[in-house]
Amino acid sequence: MKLEGIYAPIPTPFAGDQILYDRLEQNLCRWASTQLDGLVVLGSNGEFVMLDEDEKVEMVRFVRRNFPASRPVIAGTGCESTRATLRLTKAVASEGADAVLVVNPSYYKGAMTEAALEGFYTDVADESPVPVILYNMPRNTGINLSASLVARLSQHTSIIGVKDSSGNITQIAEVIHRASPGFSVFAGSGGFLYPSLCVGATGGTLAVANILADQCAGILRNYQEGRVDVAKSLQLRILEVNAAVTTRWGVAGLKAAMDMLGYYGGKPIGPLVPLEESQRRELRSILSRAGAV
Amino acid sequence: MKLEGIYAPIPTPFAGDQILYDRLEQNLCRWASTQLDGLVVLGSNGEFVMLDEDEKVEMVRFVRRNFPASRPVIAGTGCESTRATLRLTKAVASEGADAVLVVNPSYYKGAMTEAALEGFYTDVADESPVPVILYNMPRNTGINLSASLVARLSQHTSIIGVKDSSGNITQIAEVIHRASPGFSVFAGSGGFLYPSLCVGATGGTLAVANILADQCAGILRNYQEGRVDVAKSLQLRILEVNAAVTTRWGVAGLKAAMDMLGYYGGKPIGPLVPLEESQRRELRSILSRAGAV
Amino acid sequence: MKLEGIYAPIPTPFAGDQILYDRLEQNLCRWASTQLDGLVVLGSNGEFVMLDEDEKVEMVRFVRRNFPASRPVIAGTGCESTRATLRLTKAVASEGADAVLVVNPSYYKGAMTEAALEGFYTDVADESPVPVILYNMPRNTGINLSASLVARLSQHTSIIGVKDSSGNITQIAEVIHRASPGFSVFAGSGGFLYPSLCVGATGGTLAVANILADQCAGILRNYQEGRVDVAKSLQLRILEVNAAVTTRWGVAGLKAAMDMLGYYGGKPIGPLVPLEESQRRELRSILSRAGAV
Amino acid sequence: MKLEGIYAPIPTPFAGDQILYDRLEQNLCRWASTQLDGLVVLGSNGEFVMLDEDEKVEMVRFVRRNFPASRPVIAGTGCESTRATLRLTKAVASEGADAVLVVNPSYYKGAMTEAALEGFYTDVADESPVPVILYNMPRNTGINLSASLVARLSQHTSIIGVKDSSGNITQIAEVIHRASPGFSVFAGSGGFLYPSLCVGATGGTLAVANILADQCAGILRNYQEGRVDVAKSLQLRILEVNAAVTTRWGVAGLKAAMDMLGYYGGKPIGPLVPLEESQRRELRSILSRAGAV
Repeated sequence: MKLEGIYAPIPTPFAGDQILYDRLEQNLCRWASTQLDGLVVLGSNGEFVMLDEDEKVEMVRFVRRNFPASRPVIAGTGCESTRATLRLTKAVASEGADAVLVVNPSYYKGAMTEAALEGFYTDVADESPVPVILYNMPRNTGINLSASLVARLSQHTSIIGVKDSSGNITQIAEVIHRASPGFSVFAGSGGFLYPSLCVGATGGTLAVANILADQCAGILRNYQEGRVDVAKSLQLRILEVNAAVTTRWGVAGLKAAMDMLGYYGGKPIGPLVPLEESQRRELRSILSRAGAV
Repeated sequence: MKLEGIYAPIPTPFAGDQILYDRLEQNLCRWASTQLDGLVVLGSNGEFVMLDEDEKVEMVRFVRRNFPASRPVIAGTGCESTRATLRLTKAVASEGADAVLVVNPSYYKGAMTEAALEGFYTDVADESPVPVILYNMPRNTGINLSASLVARLSQHTSIIGVKDSSGNITQIAEVIHRASPGFSVFAGSGGFLYPSLCVGATGGTLAVANILADQCAGILRNYQEGRVDVAKSLQLRILEVNAAVTTRWGVAGLKAAMDMLGYYGGKPIGPLVPLEESQRRELRSILSRAGAV
Repeated sequence: MKLEGIYAPIPTPFAGDQILYDRLEQNLCRWASTQLDGLVVLGSNGEFVMLDEDEKVEMVRFVRRNFPASRPVIAGTGCESTRATLRLTKAVASEGADAVLVVNPSYYKGAMTEAALEGFYTDVADESPVPVILYNMPRNTGINLSASLVARLSQHTSIIGVKDSSGNITQIAEVIHRASPGFSVFAGSGGFLYPSLCVGATGGTLAVANILADQCAGILRNYQEGRVDVAKSLQLRILEVNAAVTTRWGVAGLKAAMDMLGYYGGKPIGPLVPLEESQRRELRSILSRAGAV
Repeated sequence: MKLEGIYAPIPTPFAGDQILYDRLEQNLCRWASTQLDGLVVLGSNGEFVMLDEDEKVEMVRFVRRNFPASRPVIAGTGCESTRATLRLTKAVASEGADAVLVVNPSYYKGAMTEAALEGFYTDVADESPVPVILYNMPRNTGINLSASLVARLSQHTSIIGVKDSSGNITQIAEVIHRASPGFSVFAGSGGFLYPSLCVGATGGTLAVANILADQCAGILRNYQEGRVDVAKSLQLRILEVNAAVTTRWGVAGLKAAMDMLGYYGGKPIGPLVPLEESQRRELRSILSRAGAV
């Protein structure tokens, strides 16, 4: 599997202590009609830390069965322990996940040295039945996967890429420069998709791609076909929507935007708090300015 | 239940993907012979984030049944979601936990506003069958529970105290000054037990109390009986051992120290890394200087 | 010189691009009537980074001449370069400064390794005509002087103490435990004066001592004379005022409080912004609750 | 003045408490023979915080007189106070500085609200005789100038651009998208020059441009002329050298590299520490791999 294209890290429709599979099916149907190259289930936007292990496995099974087989489904399987990460990785692989996206453990920050992190990823990759993608998300984990660590891990045959959500473009360029041939770098947010492509990224998994899939795909296609000014212009135009569903309002913002755009979003899982009415109004203005509603 | 005295947040003996209950029973037997006032199961030193839900419940059941009924057993039940926290809280209450210690969710750092945190703790406390203790652990969570938030939450009848591991003594004093009458503040590390008592804390739950239980109890007793110089002197003498099993080497250090002192420690759960031989030698010197070995 | 007692780090009265020496003289006269053991000129509350080198020297000269000779005047002389720090240190020593308080350079954070910091303080202490006091102020500098660094530096005969404003009481206790005999530790904020005394500090230099000098002195005296409950009670009562003139509103808050209490405060130096009217009202309420107005 | 092209933020040759103007003159002569579009004097690499006010003014005078008049010389004039910043700004303007680069005050971090920062820059720009360039350097200051703040300030007629050293490419893109027409964004490090150009930056002021001026100019020229693959390739090739003279070894690394490449570098000003011999060897290898030596 070669990691490239535009992926959406899908939210988990949830209400009354249950995943709403009928709503999810409708969302999947709409995403299938976009230019999305694949999906990520159980990412940060999927509220993976809120779900139980059996719910996680069921989510992967359902999505894999209800999304075109030609398009990969990647499952987030990072847990705090190596053992839980491996158990979940094997379970989702059995359900058809094409690859796993593994965030680093982060609770014991002081103990997560480069050596410990390298050991963790090596242990997971050694036993994973499917390709492994590193997931660098310092804003949530408080830990950064450095370029030198990622470059070393890129030599493992089962580790095929990294999703970098740091927004540190120098680090992204350094990884691209130093990693093994064939190793892919994915932008972790729509805020820096285009500059990441410029330094050699092969795509991205982007919260904003849940709602502006074709615009994101347009950035990639125009870049690939040499129309860099068009790509740049599209990039600048999605910045405000992207910020609304990431740094500003997070999962709550993304779910609210989905509701406004004909998808099912619903409420985030507690303790996450839904947007207030005034925030919804502002979000609608932002979507409107972007031509999305 | 009034939260006071010296509690040990016990590690979880673990090997080959299993909790070693026979080893745990031996440890419990020894702790019962100390002056410890109670135990905390499933705290940070218990590697709670590494255990599955059923393992957590079983741990509480086992400890509660194998430790003198006169001494409270507190169970750590904080999870990323409100729903999982509540489910675990009810389960451990059924197994006899005397209270729950609830760390705040922390993955979605940007969304953990004071309002979201207040909502989380209120929701948990409203439904918890047993008293709730707040757990402030910014070094691991990247989030601080402010004095004003804790003071507001102290008005909830089910919230009886806070374990503050920040080491911010001004904040500890502010909480004591502003909280509801009867609300208890516990020092979260042996590094600041004595100064916390001086400003009004009622005790602590201390990693170092696993191995220096009576010395910790001695700080409390001497302080309570007015021998402040003795208390201060005991405090200064445990600083180096305390640092070794907390900020410096964490759970791996604590488990190694337990092995050296006749308890069963064993290895930490991966990805945590056991101490290297040179570190063990240094740890032994530290324990030796403190008169512990 | 033995560093002990309660010191006030005085603000610099300033208006229209000039230091107001007549106002300063009035303030000095009032401070002389309090139980303050000494003053710090050119500390963080003295807006030292806002003053030119000749203004700094003149400030020290004026304060030393207009404050009782029996009470020490300490001058803040830390600059970004070793050369400027030494030049200023020698100049204020000529003007009668009894000791210098030296904050660490902090602009080149990445280069301020423990070795670089140790070199800096050693170079300054080697040539300083007067005793040197280390100044740890991580909230402003973004750098912490660790207990091990301070303990090493305490062996230099010219380095007589540290003002620690970190509020990290474990670190304060570790310094006390490990430093050379005769080395003094000063609390750097009124928020943790009493707990610092409990672990062995000899006093403090406290923003709040500018306005509640005798209450601060009372904490020290009661502690020294064994009335720990009185000391504790006084400590808890000054917390709110202390926060108002430090973490909450800083120099602007301190100057406003001085204006309300019969001292001359005036406006902070730009770009610092004076308190707004609503903030002044809240400050007055806080002072009122503390019995200060 | 329109801010565009490649600028080098030159180091200050210094020894024995003196600026070495003869060495500086030689460096200027060599820089004049490169494709550099201009110079920045008294930037972070110029160790501006280590120099006295009269030394700063003399530096600007000397550089302006000894560098081709057709190429702009920008002077760093940010100080902790508004008054000192303005005084220095007027002085260097008198000496011919074409524009000033103003880093934000940062010692009183808690007080540097967006309102305070906006007031500071507005006050400086209102009175500056020459154009003002904002300087965002969070790694050294601990403060970030947000996209919304920069966008607001871009409306001031005297504020012509920003040097952003954060490396946050989303923020750089947001500033470009939201700022007033004609406002320029400069990359603040050679690590992200090319991706910054891709989103609309007009150039950069880059430590690495002191030693790899023509390679940096090559990135810009190739980008402007549509040879994006060449630009990208050049960008990736300078990453390692760039890191060596910035994040890794800072000013000490830059000065050592200059010595190796025929410029005068010399030692950094204390407390900055020169490279050790092993570090020099590694630096030489890095320069060698990049084809610079």
